[in-house]
Amino acid sequence: MITLTTDFGLDDGYVAQMKGVIHEIAPHAKVIDLTHSVPPQDMEWAAWLLHDSIEAFPDDAIHVVVVDPGVGTARDIVAIESGGQRFVGPNNGLFGFLAEWEQDFRAVKVKQPKFWRDAVTATFHGRDIMAPVAAHWLQGVALAEFGPESGLHEIVDFDRRLMENEKRIEGRVVRIDRFGNLVSSIHPDTIPQEVLPNVQVICGDVIANGVHTCYADAARGEILCLVGSCGRLELAINCGNAAEAAGVTSHHPAFIVQW
Amino acid sequence: MITLTTDFGLDDGYVAQMKGVIHEIAPHAKVIDLTHSVPPQDMEWAAWLLHDSIEAFPDDAIHVVVVDPGVGTARDIVAIESGGQRFVGPNNGLFGFLAEWEQDFRAVKVKQPKFWRDAVTATFHGRDIMAPVAAHWLQGVALAEFGPESGLHEIVDFDRRLMENEKRIEGRVVRIDRFGNLVSSIHPDTIPQEVLPNVQVICGDVIANGVHTCYADAARGEILCLVGSCGRLELAINCGNAAEAAGVTSHHPAFIVQW
Amino acid sequence: MITLTTDFGLDDGYVAQMKGVIHEIAPHAKVIDLTHSVPPQDMEWAAWLLHDSIEAFPDDAIHVVVVDPGVGTARDIVAIESGGQRFVGPNNGLFGFLAEWEQDFRAVKVKQPKFWRDAVTATFHGRDIMAPVAAHWLQGVALAEFGPESGLHEIVDFDRRLMENEKRIEGRVVRIDRFGNLVSSIHPDTIPQEVLPNVQVICGDVIANGVHTCYADAARGEILCLVGSCGRLELAINCGNAAEAAGVTSHHPAFIVQW
Repeated sequence: MITLTTDFGLDDGYVAQMKGVIHEIAPHAKVIDLTHSVPPQDMEWAAWLLHDSIEAFPDDAIHVVVVDPGVGTARDIVAIESGGQRFVGPNNGLFGFLAEWEQDFRAVKVKQPKFWRDAVTATFHGRDIMAPVAAHWLQGVALAEFGPESGLHEIVDFDRRLMENEKRIEGRVVRIDRFGNLVSSIHPDTIPQEVLPNVQVICGDVIANGVHTCYADAARGEILCLVGSCGRLELAINCGNAAEAAGVTSHHPAFIVQW
Repeated sequence: MITLTTDFGLDDGYVAQMKGVIHEIAPHAKVIDLTHSVPPQDMEWAAWLLHDSIEAFPDDAIHVVVVDPGVGTARDIVAIESGGQRFVGPNNGLFGFLAEWEQDFRAVKVKQPKFWRDAVTATFHGRDIMAPVAAHWLQGVALAEFGPESGLHEIVDFDRRLMENEKRIEGRVVRIDRFGNLVSSIHPDTIPQEVLPNVQVICGDVIANGVHTCYADAARGEILCLVGSCGRLELAINCGNAAEAAGVTSHHPAFIVQW
Repeated sequence: MITLTTDFGLDDGYVAQMKGVIHEIAPHAKVIDLTHSVPPQDMEWAAWLLHDSIEAFPDDAIHVVVVDPGVGTARDIVAIESGGQRFVGPNNGLFGFLAEWEQDFRAVKVKQPKFWRDAVTATFHGRDIMAPVAAHWLQGVALAEFGPESGLHEIVDFDRRLMENEKRIEGRVVRIDRFGNLVSSIHPDTIPQEVLPNVQVICGDVIANGVHTCYADAARGEILCLVGSCGRLELAINCGNAAEAAGVTSHHPAFIVQW
């Protein structure tokens, strides 16, 4: 199985071209679209979405991630094996979260052109390099064949730290979903369990009180904080749109819990 | 074959997670997206779309429908077998139309956790319960294993009746498609055949005269009523957008035929 | 393998119905969405997108294209074999570009109803005629069985010529992608190679100087012209949106190169 995560959208045929290339090499590949709606060039968004999704996939799935504003420059493409999952994409922060996994980690820099398309453009390495490498990998080519080894310390990351003090944790909105739910970077385990029912949760113009269980715990139209399906805190409005109410858009604004 | 109908959109990875779970259990499943663009929490929209689409699918297809504002509350999840097709989703109106099928009907309440994911969240039963149940069903588990039997009278429905009098039928817009076509709940059989060429069809700010055969029966830019691909009346503008012209949006406004 | 290109969008279940019909006839078909976001009724957009994408697909792929404002009228549906690829769709300009391929060409008019669905509506030939024909073709039915032969001269085209004079070439924008890149109909081979670094490229309100290699050749936010992944010139803004800057929308505006 191969999953695809890009900022290409589905309108322009780019994703279909990647699938055409994959199927030419690996005719029996099962290709699943993780998302193609990453905000353009937002590596952080893509990394969190990948982080939150991969647990639902079988072992050995290969996750190809193409959010690649540096395409055609000297940035590396990496292929990574960690915790039973596999990854291919530019080394620009997309895979930094793997450093937190206490798992086996092996990676290579993708440098061996014999696994690429014959003609490699300067603008579409997703189709010309990453898709065929993933397909060959699925077909049984060994990781080491794609290029020289790369260490975990070489994997680029971005700043995912929380700012914490005694009675306050500040994280960020990592994703706004279709329902307008504001998904944060804050795990409820980082908050003293006894204060959970009484915390204040603040994002943009909204404040919610306490951490709840399901959307219907709030009256229709009311804001609430709950533990979302990815295991972290999110703000939602029962049958409404929390992002609109908060007045926030897709630029990773602060998400604050205090007590 | 499994089809997926949700109000998740395709942007957030939720649908991909359902597919990951399905493929882990049923590696050879063919999964088809029916739509993920149901307006958030609009069970009625989803039910009509399902109703209008399933005839195009092979027997034994399993249709998983996740429009589920009550997720985490006491609402039931049902698995249904009717007329050679199979269905899994919350019992909140999505499957009410099956009562009109004069078909075999068998249903169970989904209660047996051994077919669910190990960890069930309170916010994403589509991934944690419905996807794995559908996958196990596809793999041959018997319907009765998923939980206790449920009768047709227990299946929740919403009001789909037409208001009729001697020279007037009032239905509703059940769907606005990408072309702005206004798809109604009115079947042309409910109208005296001899008046069809002369009826007035009214929705929002537009009025069309007569029932036609194809979009090109009207001049470019003109409104017309025709029998759509689902067999019911729809209002369209040849190379234009009827919903915009009518000034209606996705809230199931009235659709009136009079003569 | 079957690819689907339509102006249906993914919201309304129309595409899923086509897939249901295909899988009923060809259960092992691999169906790939090329795009369903062709601007409604824009045959030219669809033709260019198909033209630019098919090279990424394996031989014998069948490309079904449904941009069909004349559905239900006398316009023909054609099935075409050319250069190792196969095509099914209305004969309304979608396949005109094949005339430029110096390849084998065989085509038929799709007239034989035994390969269609039993009930053919007047509004959805994509589901009722084209999808089943493609599926039967994939299953091994010979091209000639679908209907009488059609010559290349019968294939409808639209005007794709460039307007050229000694120091100026005028083409058109054929597609605006998700990043706002303006993809043109102009191939860099039509421009004297020695002037490429110094040309002026004009579209709407923007002017770029020279033809570059990759997006990062321009500073963040600056306009540049480069050879896109389809091999033709495009205007882009590094980490920005060229279409917005140029003030152009999806109506194929002029794209001018001068020197």
